Amino acid sequence: MDPKAFFKLSYGVYIVSTSADGKNAGCVINTLTQVTAEPARLSIALNKNNETLKLIEISGTFSAVVLSDDVTMDQIKRFGFQSSRDANKFDGIPQGRDGLNNPYPTDGVCARFACRVVSTLDVGTHVIVVGEVIEAEALDMNAPALTYSNYHHKKNGATPPNAPSYQKDAGTVVGYRCKVCGYILESDTLPLDFICPVCGKDASYFEKL
Amino acid sequence: MDPKAFFKLSYGVYIVSTSADGKNAGCVINTLTQVTAEPARLSIALNKNNETLKLIEISGTFSAVVLSDDVTMDQIKRFGFQSSRDANKFDGIPQGRDGLNNPYPTDGVCARFACRVVSTLDVGTHVIVVGEVIEAEALDMNAPALTYSNYHHKKNGATPPNAPSYQKDAGTVVGYRCKVCGYILESDTLPLDFICPVCGKDASYFEKL
Repeated sequence: MDPKAFFKLSYGVYIVSTSADGKNAGCVINTLTQVTAEPARLSIALNKNNETLKLIEISGTFSAVVLSDDVTMDQIKRFGFQSSRDANKFDGIPQGRDGLNNPYPTDGVCARFACRVVSTLDVGTHVIVVGEVIEAEALDMNAPALTYSNYHHKKNGATPPNAPSYQKDAGTVVGYRCKVCGYILESDTLPLDFICPVCGKDASYFEKL
Repeated sequence: MDPKAFFKLSYGVYIVSTSADGKNAGCVINTLTQVTAEPARLSIALNKNNETLKLIEISGTFSAVVLSDDVTMDQIKRFGFQSSRDANKFDGIPQGRDGLNNPYPTDGVCARFACRVVSTLDVGTHVIVVGEVIEAEALDMNAPALTYSNYHHKKNGATPPNAPSYQKDAGTVVGYRCKVCGYILESDTLPLDFICPVCGKDASYFEKL
């Protein structure tokens, strides 16, 4: 099994969020897919340790926003590098509220969806959640969506348009790289309970750069 | 509900194939996603009318290849513009056979996976199939993967790297466009039983260009 084969899969980058029991939660994912058109339904895959999944299972609803290519790393770090257990990620940032009463970030976002959960599937470490789209809104049609590949370039401080992400990074970055998906945490330390915000692997799968 | 919001979702383009009861089947999809890393599992969504889904339900296995940016439209048309009910799409083309005995195309392909089905989920018009990855092989790491956006440009005879697909097409192409996903069938006629190879909508959702 050659892990490099997985680098050839293409994704966008999204923030999924919800609200339940007076708490907000949100996280960064790359696994959002439209699975049916009539009615429009989206699927997402979330790690079982993820606080956002726990709250979605309570609320039965979620918001999903499509990140733009010009989103800042601060925005991604806010939603990707900490847990909603420890912080309200929506504190002090521009946000909207969808028709299902879920908050969603509005900076660096080009489209958004509000979904009601119709089914879930346990797939091991993750749960696939299928949501029926109740609201769909294009917020900035001129902003290209951030691709997962360009996200890696952004993380590495450069944006060559077509170079595969695995061909660059080490040497210029201080931090830890997920050996599974290539995600890089720019940090001097790797928290023991760190979970890769993209593929969901735990800290044992990270290597020091 | 603004359908343009869905244009902001990013995908790759893949061919999924299988073999059962002495028959081969394969089709073009954009919905392949890695949903877990340990063990590695992929999800795909297939239209219930799709012959490939019917054979996967029998074989319990499938191959998935990642199309390269330089794949020819002939290759895509072979797998996307006809049904495996009517033709063996593997007749006369370069192909491999995975360890689960499924054929897969090798031209215009940069990576491949062989999967054993672990679960399925009915999501309406489509079925989500989750497969555990038994084999993963990078076939051409230098070939960029075809993105769904560039696929539309390729269909339209041009490849501007970052222009959203919905901003161009009509006027230069003779054919029919899927009003749901933007897929264009270059043809003088639209078969009554035509199903959009990307989003699975039937012919009634196509408009003449």
